[in-house]
Amino acid sequence: MLHHKLINPKSIAVIGASNNVQTPGGRVLKNLQNHNFKGELFAVNPKETEVQGVKCYQNIKDIPAVDLAIIAIAAKFTLETIKILVKEKNTKGFIIFSAGFSEKDTEGKKLEQAIVDEINAVGGTLLGPNNIGLINQNYAGVFTTPIPKLDNNGADFISGSGATAVFIIEAAMATGLTFSSVYSVGNSAQIGVEEVLEHLDETFDKNTSSKVKLLYIESIENPQKLLKHATSLIKKGCEIAAIKAGSSSAGSRAASSHTGALANSDVAVDALFKKAGIVRCYGRNELITVASIFMHPELTGKNIAIITHAGGPAVMLTDALSKNGLNVPEIKGKESEELLEKLYLGSSVSNPIDFLATGTAEQLATIIDYCEHKFDKIDAMVVIFGSPGLFEVYDVYDVLHKKMRDCKKPIFPILPSVVNVKNEIDYFVSKGNINFPDEVLFANALGKVANTAKPETIEIKTIANNLEKIRTIINNAENGYLQPQQVKELLLAAKVPVVNEAVCSTKKDCLNTVKEFGFPVVMKVVGPIHKSDVGGIILNITSEERLIASFDTIMKIEGATSVLIQPMKKGIELFIGAKKETNFGHLVLCGLGGIYIEVLKDIQAALAPVSNTEAIEMIQNLKSYKIIQGVRNQKGVDEPKFAEIIEKISNLVTIVPEIAELDLNPLLGNSEEIFAVDARIRIEK
Amino acid sequence: MLHHKLINPKSIAVIGASNNVQTPGGRVLKNLQNHNFKGELFAVNPKETEVQGVKCYQNIKDIPAVDLAIIAIAAKFTLETIKILVKEKNTKGFIIFSAGFSEKDTEGKKLEQAIVDEINAVGGTLLGPNNIGLINQNYAGVFTTPIPKLDNNGADFISGSGATAVFIIEAAMATGLTFSSVYSVGNSAQIGVEEVLEHLDETFDKNTSSKVKLLYIESIENPQKLLKHATSLIKKGCEIAAIKAGSSSAGSRAASSHTGALANSDVAVDALFKKAGIVRCYGRNELITVASIFMHPELTGKNIAIITHAGGPAVMLTDALSKNGLNVPEIKGKESEELLEKLYLGSSVSNPIDFLATGTAEQLATIIDYCEHKFDKIDAMVVIFGSPGLFEVYDVYDVLHKKMRDCKKPIFPILPSVVNVKNEIDYFVSKGNINFPDEVLFANALGKVANTAKPETIEIKTIANNLEKIRTIINNAENGYLQPQQVKELLLAAKVPVVNEAVCSTKKDCLNTVKEFGFPVVMKVVGPIHKSDVGGIILNITSEERLIASFDTIMKIEGATSVLIQPMKKGIELFIGAKKETNFGHLVLCGLGGIYIEVLKDIQAALAPVSNTEAIEMIQNLKSYKIIQGVRNQKGVDEPKFAEIIEKISNLVTIVPEIAELDLNPLLGNSEEIFAVDARIRIEK
Repeated sequence: MLHHKLINPKSIAVIGASNNVQTPGGRVLKNLQNHNFKGELFAVNPKETEVQGVKCYQNIKDIPAVDLAIIAIAAKFTLETIKILVKEKNTKGFIIFSAGFSEKDTEGKKLEQAIVDEINAVGGTLLGPNNIGLINQNYAGVFTTPIPKLDNNGADFISGSGATAVFIIEAAMATGLTFSSVYSVGNSAQIGVEEVLEHLDETFDKNTSSKVKLLYIESIENPQKLLKHATSLIKKGCEIAAIKAGSSSAGSRAASSHTGALANSDVAVDALFKKAGIVRCYGRNELITVASIFMHPELTGKNIAIITHAGGPAVMLTDALSKNGLNVPEIKGKESEELLEKLYLGSSVSNPIDFLATGTAEQLATIIDYCEHKFDKIDAMVVIFGSPGLFEVYDVYDVLHKKMRDCKKPIFPILPSVVNVKNEIDYFVSKGNINFPDEVLFANALGKVANTAKPETIEIKTIANNLEKIRTIINNAENGYLQPQQVKELLLAAKVPVVNEAVCSTKKDCLNTVKEFGFPVVMKVVGPIHKSDVGGIILNITSEERLIASFDTIMKIEGATSVLIQPMKKGIELFIGAKKETNFGHLVLCGLGGIYIEVLKDIQAALAPVSNTEAIEMIQNLKSYKIIQGVRNQKGVDEPKFAEIIEKISNLVTIVPEIAELDLNPLLGNSEEIFAVDARIRIEK
Repeated sequence: MLHHKLINPKSIAVIGASNNVQTPGGRVLKNLQNHNFKGELFAVNPKETEVQGVKCYQNIKDIPAVDLAIIAIAAKFTLETIKILVKEKNTKGFIIFSAGFSEKDTEGKKLEQAIVDEINAVGGTLLGPNNIGLINQNYAGVFTTPIPKLDNNGADFISGSGATAVFIIEAAMATGLTFSSVYSVGNSAQIGVEEVLEHLDETFDKNTSSKVKLLYIESIENPQKLLKHATSLIKKGCEIAAIKAGSSSAGSRAASSHTGALANSDVAVDALFKKAGIVRCYGRNELITVASIFMHPELTGKNIAIITHAGGPAVMLTDALSKNGLNVPEIKGKESEELLEKLYLGSSVSNPIDFLATGTAEQLATIIDYCEHKFDKIDAMVVIFGSPGLFEVYDVYDVLHKKMRDCKKPIFPILPSVVNVKNEIDYFVSKGNINFPDEVLFANALGKVANTAKPETIEIKTIANNLEKIRTIINNAENGYLQPQQVKELLLAAKVPVVNEAVCSTKKDCLNTVKEFGFPVVMKVVGPIHKSDVGGIILNITSEERLIASFDTIMKIEGATSVLIQPMKKGIELFIGAKKETNFGHLVLCGLGGIYIEVLKDIQAALAPVSNTEAIEMIQNLKSYKIIQGVRNQKGVDEPKFAEIIEKISNLVTIVPEIAELDLNPLLGNSEEIFAVDARIRIEK
């Protein structure tokens, strides 16, 4: 938890305070005073006795005890200052604006660590260094402008980049989105995005805390902490949207060069966000639009009524909602005819509900009432109302304001006339509302919110397996790829169905094996890893002659030590894999085999542990899912069984963190059975 | 061509002029006067002698001859008024704001047609009715606000929706995008979007005309006219972006209910835009952003340098550019090291070029010079420069302004600090620049522009075919599906390779046929259309016994009249089709067969006539293209031959407009040959 003296200090010292408000030390003092900090303020500057009307101490040693220090002096002077603060001034909160630490060089990194050690020793909290500071309802501890409108219902925003935080605040201000707090974590020397989120989770109060959290992240240092607290907050009723920048390989290079941190695998980030229920955004406008949607009642269904006085934007909105998986269902029946009677001739109520350029505030109220009370299948309303500039529309926006509070269904306002009725929009926003100026950007964001599922209360089934056997195999194994026999034993111990097989070193072994299995069989090379690339797989062997000939062929392959014989199974090629992602844990993957992976890259991923619901969802989200269901009069694949094997693999990698890579490729599946016919497992202890 | 008296009238009469500027007739007169119309103005209103300082006539009969009439009176009075104007006042330009015409009912439709007839009779031009009017550099003939900034370089904007035009103008004004003209076509009684575009094409002057055209369309009435003039304008050096609303089925329903027009097939719209080289947009913000990109020098390559003083937005921009197929290549080497020397310690030049929060205007100039002159592989620059609010940035924006004019490579400014340095941004925009406030929305739009190819100078190869034979078959055919023999003859006449085949009615026929073809063969039912659904296809028949048995099986199928025998070919299943799309002409389609069409919907489409380049592009744009190239050590499909058959089909449907539907499904293709093995053709005369 962050120290309460950082969050709600009774006294603040600005070290490096200045009368020049173009410097960080000058501007932060101005912000603190302008934005009504109610506690005591001290300035420290060797050259001044008073700064901006605040008493100034020439020497840090002379100041009284102080809760929070905001430090805006050169990096080289910071450690000495902090030693005095922790030892003599009972200071527990620290914000260091200064740059020149770990982001600069190894010297800076050492200095930063020394500072953290000092602060840790007294149980204090450090935000920064190299950040813009902290804004909350208690104080505006940043050297930047603008300070956004702050209230309990505003968003809590944690940013890994100070400038990005500023630009996001600026973009938000035009729309009416407010904040509850803004944390800039800078170098995250002691406290990063994850720790601030943890703090927000641990101090969450359902009556007073904001229910909206926004994150801008360039590097996830502690994925499990992020997952834990994001999930927990969402389960407490919060909504979270986040940008994780560096999602492309070029962007990842850019982020690494900017933060010096290692790049995160983007598939892992996606899987983490999905598991937590975080709405992933990619840009500032999108983040703000999603946050603004969060400020409205939650969407409980996918059926949207569009209420408009202009046809064009309603058509574009309908297109955009449809493309995002939301419905604009046709509204028909007696009650819609009744509504039509109340509107001007030429109106349409079939959804979009178009009440024409001449439509009135009173008609808007009537339409909203019908959507709220009479059109049962409607889950939410979007109202588009601009102006060609002939007259004022205060009355319309007053109706909107009132209905947004009276109705249970969410009402989203699209007010596009940012020039013609700027005053009315400002008035609407000043009453605590948010405007969405562009219907398509709104629809894309709404779709994103609607398509992000809440985190499940994951009850990971305890899958029957032979734990002891599994651990024995792993403990005896060396780093690298397991031997075929070990793979088979491990999978069997994990209750993963594996096709029957035998490793044979002689022709006689082969003949004996086939007596047991029966023809047809498959023969595979043992030794080389990429069997098919070296021609090491011979299918559909139906006679003893071909068996012997195949043995001869395969044993000639370089590196071949023996052959593996399996009964020939029929079915659709499937794929299940797992991959360790540094500090994220394991990603579990599934798909159809062959060209579906190689050409179409049709793979779904989830972070282990994978629940049954998640496994089913992975399968159903495959683009080629219809093939698993069965197409062209052919039976598909036993879906519950496929899901169960995914769970078993998730289970196995959870028990055996030493598994670096695991591939069941292919499994052969039909409507009755699924068997792994080839598998590779790589161990990294 | 639109009458010059509409475009550049020397005199304008406002019929229904009013002192109440909250009415269309009042506001348009105000707009005309405020925005400096230099010709003569007359007002007509039975109750006034002077309106807003303009002489007012009580009776239309009393006004002098007038070039343009802007009509804002009830629909029922319009016809009489127009008769007087065309007969007695030599009026050639007409704008009718009034509603109550074809959009209302059949009475209104008749009235509208009567008006068009009157105007046609004197060679006049009518914009509307039911529109907001026309704005160009000669006059502001609209009843709405705002009137955007107008200049020769601004966009020509044609809108099928008046309100949408207003909202687009409003959204554009904040960014600095200017206009050259705005046409609102309303009901398009005489002149629609296509006709205005035709006019802009026919009057295009490379020295004085705007090079940017924007369209908002709800229904394409004349696709071929749109294609012709869009292509022509783009070949003259213009760029065109367009929204075609109603792209989803729900949106299409919404558009139809709004405009009363039939919905266009969205695949056909896509194909039309692609052929013309129109950048397709889906929302107002996107259209404006694309238009703003058009106002910069054209992007000639895909390598972008990002120049920034803030890391976060640069990372998000890198991600977004990458996802849109653009590169942010690493910059290395001696010259980049040289540049690094000139920047503050801690800067990075590897691209993004990050010159830190403390970066100066002078450094920006240096960086831009390096990108322009020394970094050869860079094609364009994006400069991100906001402000945390400590000091002014006029000097930086001055550098940007100057370099944008001096450099050959395009420079796109991302100025995110819309609050902190609002004055500086306004200053920058006032000097004729455009700001892109959000880096990700910018990147998405830039990607769209970069990925839209210019129209080719299509030289449709005259493919050798037997035209006479083709016409004979079609002339003798009846409506509906052609018989197998007709299909075969038609395809052969069109030089489409068809697998050898024979229709057999008796077992003896079958045996004789196989003597010619050799085993193995395929047998298909003749009669039923959906052969495979009724079990009417038997593959790989290898013996006379199976041949006879197969004949018996197939002839038992309901509707079976005979069987079709073909040699059994091996290869990858391919698909080529064609479909007549009302007034768009034919869409030609291609893809892989089977599940690729049924499950993955992996189909590419182009409007006929399809050139060789287009056919190759269709094939290469398939998601499953790698399979055509060959995967897993298997040879692929002869791509030039596949493209050639696509062209031949395009050729055939161009010669035979009576073909409503044509399916070659499947063709079997390998690296040496491609044969159609099944085909259906439906004729609609």
